[in-house]
Amino acid sequence: MPKVEIIAVGSELLTPERMDTNSLWLTAQLNELGFEVSAKTIVGDQRERLSEAFRQAFEWADVVICTGGLGPTEDDVTRDSAAQALGISQVHHESLWVELQEKFARMGRVTPANNRRQALVLEGAESLPNPNGTAPGQWRDPQGPGQKPLVMLPGPPRELKPMFLNHVLERLRPLAGQNVLLRRILKVFGLGESALDERLAHLYPQHPEVVVTTLFTPLDLEVHLAASAPTPEGCLERIMPLEEKIRQELGQYCYGQGQQSLAEVVGQLLLERQATLVTAESLTGGLVAQRITEVAGSSQYFLGGWVCYSEAFKHQQLGVSWEMLREHGAVSEPVAYALAMNARQQSGADYALAFTGYAGPSGGTEQDPVGTVYLAVATPAGVETKRIQFPGDRELVRSRAAQAGLDWLRRHF
Amino acid sequence: MPKVEIIAVGSELLTPERMDTNSLWLTAQLNELGFEVSAKTIVGDQRERLSEAFRQAFEWADVVICTGGLGPTEDDVTRDSAAQALGISQVHHESLWVELQEKFARMGRVTPANNRRQALVLEGAESLPNPNGTAPGQWRDPQGPGQKPLVMLPGPPRELKPMFLNHVLERLRPLAGQNVLLRRILKVFGLGESALDERLAHLYPQHPEVVVTTLFTPLDLEVHLAASAPTPEGCLERIMPLEEKIRQELGQYCYGQGQQSLAEVVGQLLLERQATLVTAESLTGGLVAQRITEVAGSSQYFLGGWVCYSEAFKHQQLGVSWEMLREHGAVSEPVAYALAMNARQQSGADYALAFTGYAGPSGGTEQDPVGTVYLAVATPAGVETKRIQFPGDRELVRSRAAQAGLDWLRRHF
Repeated sequence: MPKVEIIAVGSELLTPERMDTNSLWLTAQLNELGFEVSAKTIVGDQRERLSEAFRQAFEWADVVICTGGLGPTEDDVTRDSAAQALGISQVHHESLWVELQEKFARMGRVTPANNRRQALVLEGAESLPNPNGTAPGQWRDPQGPGQKPLVMLPGPPRELKPMFLNHVLERLRPLAGQNVLLRRILKVFGLGESALDERLAHLYPQHPEVVVTTLFTPLDLEVHLAASAPTPEGCLERIMPLEEKIRQELGQYCYGQGQQSLAEVVGQLLLERQATLVTAESLTGGLVAQRITEVAGSSQYFLGGWVCYSEAFKHQQLGVSWEMLREHGAVSEPVAYALAMNARQQSGADYALAFTGYAGPSGGTEQDPVGTVYLAVATPAGVETKRIQFPGDRELVRSRAAQAGLDWLRRHF
Repeated sequence: MPKVEIIAVGSELLTPERMDTNSLWLTAQLNELGFEVSAKTIVGDQRERLSEAFRQAFEWADVVICTGGLGPTEDDVTRDSAAQALGISQVHHESLWVELQEKFARMGRVTPANNRRQALVLEGAESLPNPNGTAPGQWRDPQGPGQKPLVMLPGPPRELKPMFLNHVLERLRPLAGQNVLLRRILKVFGLGESALDERLAHLYPQHPEVVVTTLFTPLDLEVHLAASAPTPEGCLERIMPLEEKIRQELGQYCYGQGQQSLAEVVGQLLLERQATLVTAESLTGGLVAQRITEVAGSSQYFLGGWVCYSEAFKHQQLGVSWEMLREHGAVSEPVAYALAMNARQQSGADYALAFTGYAGPSGGTEQDPVGTVYLAVATPAGVETKRIQFPGDRELVRSRAAQAGLDWLRRHF
């Protein structure tokens, strides 16, 4: 598969707050076309360092794509550095300059003299129109032996994406490999990363043509299966036999695929059964309802929920007796039970999920330290409860408890 | 300020799904110490390409830090490539090998032969202990003219972070510059990015010693102010005069600083007034309660909330009359009003926030298309309502509506 290197330009991409997210989008596009991204470099607004990065990329990759640094100021060094790396000059395109002046005129402004830089095009390159900004892109075909195609794109995603789709994609297609790369994602809940590895490791050597990576997120585990072949169908032919084995090995632990969330899968199951759901959340504070209602169409099965954060709220709105709260405490199996049962009865829903626990950082008791969670699920068949002890901080405990509740409900269908 | 280049190793970092997030954390640490990150390179598991990246980094940076690729397999090429770039060999450290075997023994396992690789240390380097994994790190001081310090860290964040803090930080401190870099963040809600720029642009040239960047997130706007000086106090002396002017210019639009969330600021205001809050959410489906309860200690002012997603729930649990729902529809000013008023009365809270609207993708009417949101706030002084039309998709509409409600409540104090 031909190699692409991506160079992202801009000092702001070297701060602790911003990342180069363009390259993720570009990688997905390039993989689908049949290119592999073999390296990414992020350089600040330093001419010499950037030139060197271009020289390296030209040496190692089959195509070089750079993003950003095409603006009108001194700091916008991409054009100069690319020219320097290639040992070529830049040419003023009068037509670009006229267009730029027209753009500014439409905004009722005079074009600053600085912007003249944006009419410079690398010798041998064509400019690519940018309807969403002032910086034109550039495409440069190899002009001699050993040279590589160069693509220069503006940094803002809403300028970069349409330019790539409208002007770069078709130019890249003939350079793409015989093969395309396809990736399938399996979503897994309830297994740790090493437990997952132990279950699956013996399968990988049977399918060396599939690249497997596992991704551990705060929500769940993902197993990525990637293969390349001349067609997407060919990729699937390579991936599916392994995917089948993995699904068999994981059984109920695998809840979905692709971008499906657990809340979406639960929603689908409720929809198929024409069943309805309510939630009663203390610990998770609305997070479960939020995940459920993130899914478009969730109003077809989700009636609503209570965020019963205080004892008074649990008593007044969901009929948990003061006596029970005094005797067992709000974080207890009987209270989780009562919340689920009352939520179901009070709303007339088919299912109710309830969550109580200690998210931390403070709270907890000796028997029930921070991280202790009581879940309850009320179904037409009765009420069940479960105690789980989660590691991690406040955010992780809440997030994992929410996921554990949804997963438990899923397993009731 | 001395320059650090970071090299992240691993083919998984070149897929569309994963990013190198370690470098963000490292950048924050390094800036605080007095280093600037001047470039980042991400390379897959390719020996030759990685060696070249090391050679470049050694040429351009004062310190080189690499992360990942220190595992026991053939794909873990970092050690070999660094040695190759430096033209040195690797030494087997028997003590590391013994330690590794002990680690595996404690897990009840025999050490795989592959792991012997992890006992290899670059000539002239010291190994850094890794209590959270099997891969030791390495620190290598320059061994001759033109050489630069090299730090090798494992990829998993929970191994990398403690290793950096416990073993690298103090070794780097004497190499740091005279200056440290300090960054302050102002949080802004209610202004678009260009409106913000228009208000502030005239201030920046008055303070060329402060680097200002604005960051547009789905939640709000951030203004980052960075300056370098010999001490953190010196940085603040440079930043604060500009920060004062910006705060004055932005007035109520600036709601906080640093990592403070809007929900945290609202919580602080409630706490100061010993006031309590409840929520009634249709549109936002629990998102507002979730943001409020994300804040540790929120149980001191947040009593709870209703996620009144269906009409029946609005009627049964919050007393909205069927007549009103029929006449005005669930997405209407009277229903938002009734939800806030009844939520406040039913719970005895001081404040109530209510949200109803069309998040899309389907739904909406001619007068109230997708994106229409009715907010209501009930206070001791009465109930107010507000209609806002948001652009964007389901997720953005919900997110912005939640933020707008919290911001509106903030402005009532």
